[in-house]
Amino acid sequence: MEKLISLAHGDGGELSHRLICDVFIDAFGDNNTPLFDAAALTIPTGKIAVTTDSFVIKPIFFPGGSIGKLAVAGTVNDLAVSGARPVYLTCGFIIEEGFPIAELRKVVADMVNEAKKTGVKIVAGDTKVVECGSADGVYINTTGIGIYDKNAGCSLAFTEGDAIIVSGSIGDHGVAVLTARGELGIHSPIESDCASLNHMLGKVLASTDGVRIMRDPTRGGLATTLVEIAEDFHLTMKINESDLPVKAEVHGVCDLLGFDPLYLANEGKAILIVAAEEKDKVIDILREFPEGKDAVVIGTIIAKNKGQLLLETPLGSKRLLTRLSGTMFPRIC
Amino acid sequence: MEKLISLAHGDGGELSHRLICDVFIDAFGDNNTPLFDAAALTIPTGKIAVTTDSFVIKPIFFPGGSIGKLAVAGTVNDLAVSGARPVYLTCGFIIEEGFPIAELRKVVADMVNEAKKTGVKIVAGDTKVVECGSADGVYINTTGIGIYDKNAGCSLAFTEGDAIIVSGSIGDHGVAVLTARGELGIHSPIESDCASLNHMLGKVLASTDGVRIMRDPTRGGLATTLVEIAEDFHLTMKINESDLPVKAEVHGVCDLLGFDPLYLANEGKAILIVAAEEKDKVIDILREFPEGKDAVVIGTIIAKNKGQLLLETPLGSKRLLTRLSGTMFPRIC
Repeated sequence: MEKLISLAHGDGGELSHRLICDVFIDAFGDNNTPLFDAAALTIPTGKIAVTTDSFVIKPIFFPGGSIGKLAVAGTVNDLAVSGARPVYLTCGFIIEEGFPIAELRKVVADMVNEAKKTGVKIVAGDTKVVECGSADGVYINTTGIGIYDKNAGCSLAFTEGDAIIVSGSIGDHGVAVLTARGELGIHSPIESDCASLNHMLGKVLASTDGVRIMRDPTRGGLATTLVEIAEDFHLTMKINESDLPVKAEVHGVCDLLGFDPLYLANEGKAILIVAAEEKDKVIDILREFPEGKDAVVIGTIIAKNKGQLLLETPLGSKRLLTRLSGTMFPRIC
Repeated sequence: MEKLISLAHGDGGELSHRLICDVFIDAFGDNNTPLFDAAALTIPTGKIAVTTDSFVIKPIFFPGGSIGKLAVAGTVNDLAVSGARPVYLTCGFIIEEGFPIAELRKVVADMVNEAKKTGVKIVAGDTKVVECGSADGVYINTTGIGIYDKNAGCSLAFTEGDAIIVSGSIGDHGVAVLTARGELGIHSPIESDCASLNHMLGKVLASTDGVRIMRDPTRGGLATTLVEIAEDFHLTMKINESDLPVKAEVHGVCDLLGFDPLYLANEGKAILIVAAEEKDKVIDILREFPEGKDAVVIGTIIAKNKGQLLLETPLGSKRLLTRLSGTMFPRIC
């Protein structure tokens, strides 16, 4: 087989056919079944969750993951935080002419690996090739379908006193990807937190009715995600700066470069807002999983009117947080 | 609002939020509902069809359509030829920094328009922005979910004598897009056939049990799609060159440039293989619709062994057709 992707790999003809058979079907599927224009799938319930995400991360391989792992975990997490059990994924590749097929195989292997871990099945795919200079290596879209099991989903029944939990340290992904680019001239031992959270969050949901909402603080970071929740549901929330879990190395890089970990991307963390009386139970369940071992309460809902997020500093002063404003850096996911 | 897409429109912060509200939600959805990481959807049956496609067509506006119209119609058609009724679409945008927001609005308006025509709902979306030079304008992934209504779907019960039908003239899309690029120095009055076929194909399926398979001959053209069917199901098929519906202008451009209309992309045509005794009925139904007014029988299944596609010329000689081999031109869809 050729070593580099050529335009003919995307023309729908003989080379496309071989690429699909050799690289994709071999990894994802079943070589003996005819391919149709759509996959026919069984769905056991009357309500499904659907989400879509394109991944354009640079570099495509980074400490702790790759665009392939991320493309599965990212979409799985969007389903999981919605209270659904992820079951099916589609993937659409846009590949730049000249991209090494060996790298494509590695990306696909990472997707297969992560899909196995999470229990999702990759059921449909598409490959397009664009001329050299019209993309940057490879971009992947994944669309996920999840199922709502009995009673699952989040109540959205927010109350004053609800606890705000984050499942672990923030900013790891942002720092890992930025330093992996090598453009900033600094190195760090930080790995991306890129991970699928569906098993962990599924267990939380199955164990308590006290979950109000779950979200994953990816682009825009913890602060932007909490501001969105505050505004959407007219909640006043307070988080405590001294409770935020930030690794020393992430603090170090942020201090050096003037970044704020509150606005750095995470790819393996969840925010959970839960009833006060359930917070210890939820923390215990999260800590059973490696992805949740550093789970901690970082704040509370203090009122149900203003749609504001407040940060309380160690000295007791309060600062209003807003969405991320102006890009910190592109192509972080 | 800004006039051009900037990297900050993709960072998940304030500008992303405004872009999503002003351009996407305003067109696709409901400004008053909080956005979640996944859409919760109702599915009335236990079996769904799922398909995904990325669109990288160049130019993004062409005679007869745009990347927006195509991104809806293309995915709708993949569901429709699978025998499913398209109901939900997701869309993922990868946008190049500097892309005019006014053009993005036009693309989105075309998507909304085509979605309305077909009856599908756009239920989830994602936007990424990459640096200038890391994409070419805008790429769109759409993933479609369809429902199998009672008894629908194709039988795959192929028999010798089955008729091969194409729903209209071939090669229009390929020629329209190629000449629209202006690189070839020729002009033609041909418009792309880009259209959603779900209502037409749905009526065929509801009216007869005689449909063996349906496919849309997009990339790779009519010949490649028929070769795939022949190989997948070990059929020997014969099509008659003199029965192929090719517009005079398409013939003209092909003669000039050495292209073969059998291998040119179509974006609003279907191939239907149907029981011989049902072919007249199917043709009649297809011709009720503007997209099917030139529907015609072009060949038959002559045996069930070899997995070959034969072209019979007007002089009676037969030629074995293969898949498209080596790209004719990139980014046709």
